[in-house]
Amino acid sequence: MSHSSGKSQQDALHAADAASTLVLKRVAIDTYRENVAYLHRDCELYRAEGFQALAKVEVSDDGRRILASVNVVDDDTIVGCSELGLSEDAFALLGLPEGHRVSVSQAEPPTSIPALHRKIAGERLSSENFRAIVNDIAEHRYSKIELTAFVVACNQAELDREEVFFLSDAMSRVGRRLNWGEHPVVDKHCIGGIPGNRTSMLVVPIVAAHGMLCPKTSSRAITSPAGTADTMEVLARVELQFEQLNSIVRTHRGCLAWGGTSDLSPADDVLIAVERPLSIDSPGQMVASILSKKVAAGSTHLVLDIPVGPTAKVTSMPEAQRLRRLFEYVAKRMGLVLEVVITDGRQPIGNGIGPALEARDVMQVLENSPAAPADLRQKSLRLAGRMLEFDPDVRGGDGFAIARDILDSGRALRKMQDIIEAQGSKPFDLGNPPLAPLTYAVRADTAGTVVNIDNLQLARIARQAGAPRAQGAGVDLRAKLGDPVQPGDLLYTVYAAYPTELGFARRLCERSSGFTLGQAADITPAFMEF
Amino acid sequence: MSHSSGKSQQDALHAADAASTLVLKRVAIDTYRENVAYLHRDCELYRAEGFQALAKVEVSDDGRRILASVNVVDDDTIVGCSELGLSEDAFALLGLPEGHRVSVSQAEPPTSIPALHRKIAGERLSSENFRAIVNDIAEHRYSKIELTAFVVACNQAELDREEVFFLSDAMSRVGRRLNWGEHPVVDKHCIGGIPGNRTSMLVVPIVAAHGMLCPKTSSRAITSPAGTADTMEVLARVELQFEQLNSIVRTHRGCLAWGGTSDLSPADDVLIAVERPLSIDSPGQMVASILSKKVAAGSTHLVLDIPVGPTAKVTSMPEAQRLRRLFEYVAKRMGLVLEVVITDGRQPIGNGIGPALEARDVMQVLENSPAAPADLRQKSLRLAGRMLEFDPDVRGGDGFAIARDILDSGRALRKMQDIIEAQGSKPFDLGNPPLAPLTYAVRADTAGTVVNIDNLQLARIARQAGAPRAQGAGVDLRAKLGDPVQPGDLLYTVYAAYPTELGFARRLCERSSGFTLGQAADITPAFMEF
Repeated sequence: MSHSSGKSQQDALHAADAASTLVLKRVAIDTYRENVAYLHRDCELYRAEGFQALAKVEVSDDGRRILASVNVVDDDTIVGCSELGLSEDAFALLGLPEGHRVSVSQAEPPTSIPALHRKIAGERLSSENFRAIVNDIAEHRYSKIELTAFVVACNQAELDREEVFFLSDAMSRVGRRLNWGEHPVVDKHCIGGIPGNRTSMLVVPIVAAHGMLCPKTSSRAITSPAGTADTMEVLARVELQFEQLNSIVRTHRGCLAWGGTSDLSPADDVLIAVERPLSIDSPGQMVASILSKKVAAGSTHLVLDIPVGPTAKVTSMPEAQRLRRLFEYVAKRMGLVLEVVITDGRQPIGNGIGPALEARDVMQVLENSPAAPADLRQKSLRLAGRMLEFDPDVRGGDGFAIARDILDSGRALRKMQDIIEAQGSKPFDLGNPPLAPLTYAVRADTAGTVVNIDNLQLARIARQAGAPRAQGAGVDLRAKLGDPVQPGDLLYTVYAAYPTELGFARRLCERSSGFTLGQAADITPAFMEF
Repeated sequence: MSHSSGKSQQDALHAADAASTLVLKRVAIDTYRENVAYLHRDCELYRAEGFQALAKVEVSDDGRRILASVNVVDDDTIVGCSELGLSEDAFALLGLPEGHRVSVSQAEPPTSIPALHRKIAGERLSSENFRAIVNDIAEHRYSKIELTAFVVACNQAELDREEVFFLSDAMSRVGRRLNWGEHPVVDKHCIGGIPGNRTSMLVVPIVAAHGMLCPKTSSRAITSPAGTADTMEVLARVELQFEQLNSIVRTHRGCLAWGGTSDLSPADDVLIAVERPLSIDSPGQMVASILSKKVAAGSTHLVLDIPVGPTAKVTSMPEAQRLRRLFEYVAKRMGLVLEVVITDGRQPIGNGIGPALEARDVMQVLENSPAAPADLRQKSLRLAGRMLEFDPDVRGGDGFAIARDILDSGRALRKMQDIIEAQGSKPFDLGNPPLAPLTYAVRADTAGTVVNIDNLQLARIARQAGAPRAQGAGVDLRAKLGDPVQPGDLLYTVYAAYPTELGFARRLCERSSGFTLGQAADITPAFMEF
């Protein structure tokens, strides 16, 4: 087909280009990870371009470029007609000074949108499709609506295992990719779902004390009351510059920092911002999220913990085996040595649920305190043992004993203190941990044996109480599976920082405490003794 | 279980209540249908409650109440420490004056969220689940993320037909429900997807001129370059107060107004705000959206148009039959008499695509102009004929001739003029319709017969050119299926209001014009002659 357009229109195109710069202004509004551009309704550019509220614009100069959604302003004191306002995050991301002239133009729709629509319709996508989508996501080209659509579409359509590899591989290729120049580089990860399960904070110091390189990047809670990064933050700074993190790992053989600043698999961080409010955690996304981060971080060997129990993420052995095979398939395609361990997920691990309470448990184990929760100690030693056996000099079956020696001798504690010091220590008194001021006690009203503890309900209670945002908030368990209790015995204490949140948590407890009392014989047997 | 909390905590709860009022301020920012509350970072209430950016708060007084997402502000000139700022829409929705003291509290999560999570996981929901979800949606309790998750989850999991009835029924019960006190009350609807298909603007005047009650509420474009409301808006006001709309229908037996102000199935309007940017239009949502609005509007009889063609929404007869059965099943459960007609959807109907261009086509047909597009006239007469046969005094088979008489005699035009006058007419000169100033011509570069016109590509081009936002923008077809063309013959002209948008549309045309030339024998036969 042939095409024509008049000269006057070419002129109009050039005129629009000339008029398209505005004076940059920082608008002191925190829009939480959503870039917002504020344009005055009478701004000539806004009218000339026919921008609409919520339209995406590209703001650029000097090779710097961000995308932002338009909010239209009718108040000169917020932005004037010749100004472009940016919300705080957007202003920081663009990195140009106030008063700078910037170009503003309508953003073209992300090129991967047709692929997104095909996934929404339930179709299978190619490796190229996933790369295009992941690139657009990492560059913040997707709106919240488009991100959510991608997450839910992948959640439901059950990506096939080849697609999970495509997605994991695409995610691991965006952002930074580390190469430590040695072998093995080890890591461990748990798929989550078990409150209090802070084994990484014990495993890393043990393995690093043995001399293995373990550049563990931890995440913050997605749907749980605390992630490893949230808990470690009670003891030390976790948001480190990449270079600092790098040098800590080289010096101390391990670290316990938040991975978000390292630009490892950055698309994952964007996706999590949507998965979190929806409590979504599908097999495909779980595998892609975990393995893309590990591969980007330069790990060569990984121990993966899949807990199974009636209220764990995985509720049956067949399901655990299916998930294990998916992890193994994708890890192999990505060149990662993977050891999956299926563990007892019938109840929380340790006593505390919430950052400060869990940090207390971890430090008690490292200090070899008599008050230390035995289940947390035992599980951590077993996981560390499996990791130590990645060392070609360690014989199969010897890992556990080596790990126990490192812990009992205080070498793990000293390694942890070194890591805390290196990341930037925070004041923490194990005798008086920083718990939230408001409390609420839940007691047994009959005699019996604890036969079930609902992981989900206890996580919900701890979250409603304010964890992980309020570090000292959460739940402190005083009874575990198999414990006999009398009427009036304390089952757990809820800690909260704000009255409203204590109220929310209390209402949840009143609906269901999460504890079931009965006969010792009623206890669900463990699906797997690990 | 028994529970206890200390007295000091009860006091703290009361203190928090007392401190929770702030002075209302209108912040002149248009956040486009998202309620935003602006709170100063040093606001005592913000700190005491531990609100977070994006947390939902409830703002209330005098029995009025809205929910809004928090944006945190660091600039006293936007909001002070004792003030609560509301974005323009949110301020209007709350309806209280500036300076009024309002209560602000953390909003509890919507009660239907567990049901949403089960739908995301692919489970079947009950009638009660759908009612709870639809209520929360209509009350704006869902965030954009939750809305998108619901839409995508229902899109993919293919709601079963019972669930589609639950959803339709729940949607029709929220908001206003009209009862016209007579029988039959007729309506027509097309599932969409065919550019230029403005039959409603011909069918309504014909049927109303016959004396049947036809309270047609029209929608704006969701994913198309124009909806009936967008096109009618070229000729008359379409955003009417409910009482006015009501009185026009009673006086003139019909109207062509936008349904959004009538509070009919308001949850549908909220869902469309998410479906629009995703171009989502699944069978279940289509049925629920259409039938809930018709039942709420008090219609008793409906003619539904399902166009079939290679680039229509429905591409095969088996698919059309499946959709027809779903519509019939749900309509029957809802007590609505439904007549489904399957029509030729192989190309756009009429010549114009875009509000002003389509309004021109419609008026040409009503004026019996020789330039009037024959396909638009013919299809409208057939649809009107089927509706007229809902009149117990009209014999089966006579409807078409009655409709043609009404059109040819000028009675349909006079009825349309009455409706336009009653809604509030706008200046419109059929000899000189208000088309956009910038144009771009697409011409044949070989000789041949038009054997295919891609509905989707032409709709995309018209939208990129600015339709429906820019009323005069769009595409004007100069050749249709079966037309022979010579090199240099005009296929269509693109109209745009802004240079950027003309550029976007031109780039699309250059990629693919949407026209295929070939031998007359290559034309896809019509799936159905209607």
